Amino acid sequence: MTGPGTVRPGGRTARTREAVREATLAELAEHGYQGLTVDNVAARSGVHKTTVYRRWGSAEGLVADALELAAAEPWPVPDTGSAEGDLRALARLVQSGFADAEQGPVAAAFVAAAVQNPGAAKALHTFFARRHEDAAAVVDRAVERGELPAGTDSAEVVRAAVAPLYYRLFITGERIDEAVADRAGSAAFAAARAGAFTR
Amino acid sequence: MTGPGTVRPGGRTARTREAVREATLAELAEHGYQGLTVDNVAARSGVHKTTVYRRWGSAEGLVADALELAAAEPWPVPDTGSAEGDLRALARLVQSGFADAEQGPVAAAFVAAAVQNPGAAKALHTFFARRHEDAAAVVDRAVERGELPAGTDSAEVVRAAVAPLYYRLFITGERIDEAVADRAGSAAFAAARAGAFTR
Repeated sequence: MTGPGTVRPGGRTARTREAVREATLAELAEHGYQGLTVDNVAARSGVHKTTVYRRWGSAEGLVADALELAAAEPWPVPDTGSAEGDLRALARLVQSGFADAEQGPVAAAFVAAAVQNPGAAKALHTFFARRHEDAAAVVDRAVERGELPAGTDSAEVVRAAVAPLYYRLFITGERIDEAVADRAGSAAFAAARAGAFTR
Repeated sequence: MTGPGTVRPGGRTARTREAVREATLAELAEHGYQGLTVDNVAARSGVHKTTVYRRWGSAEGLVADALELAAAEPWPVPDTGSAEGDLRALARLVQSGFADAEQGPVAAAFVAAAVQNPGAAKALHTFFARRHEDAAAVVDRAVERGELPAGTDSAEVVRAAVAPLYYRLFITGERIDEAVADRAGSAAFAAARAGAFTR
């Protein structure tokens, strides 16, 4: 919840949105998407139930708004000096995010919401499109340095670096660790270097 | 539903199981996992509701059993003569499966079920472990032919070939087509050839 010392620019509306968002994330972490209700978010945020219903409408609306705010947040696009290092670092960001006791369950809840609900799916897709766009910088820099071939499809390299982690987490149910992340990053680099992602 | 001409070995119990499985798949295709009920499967299969409840218990049990039968079914592990050809063919099998009007919605429903339900997740994980094991033959043959380095982790190459398809379908919500499948297969091959998957 937003404490008295964290009043944000934008005034009361922004504070309400932030309080609802934080309550949504906390509820997702504790109960998952299937346990997310407008009533619980209202109670937890201290925002009146009718306000939450009027502005967010449903659990779907709460998830979509939380994702919209998450997409807008800055995140540390890796810049290690080498393409392989950057791609490994990208994969590590995904791995450590899911391993995190707070972020992990929320991220998993976002994916679960997207599988069950078209509105949440749309919000998640927008989130990933934004992340791919940001992370493309890693590949573009590598092309400029001559590490990767000209014409490399940067979003495709980023997908290759992180896809094996999501595949294990949400499809095959296999665990991921730092070694899995490093291998995914290095494999994406090797394939890109060999020209597998040139347009 | 099982017609009179398709009596299977195993007699009445096997026929009942097959009828329930086919009804489960048809219900998943039409209504997804969230719309799957024991009552509807019983009605569709012609098997008495109390029998379905006693033997399968719930929607979760129906999905787990359908996946168990699917895992045991033979499938055409590609053998094109080259590692790259085989890995592309593997990715194409995934892509064409999801594009199929009957199989696609069922496969998507299995993934949705796994995200929502631990029992379905366990069944899906067993299914994929079996598929990875079968598909490993593609990589093992390539190592024997000298196309890929000795010590290549075959399951890891298989994961790399198909993960980008699942990532697009279930995480980023991007469409997949034959070109996406071919690129995933070729990228997995290039990374494996470069030694990214050696143990």
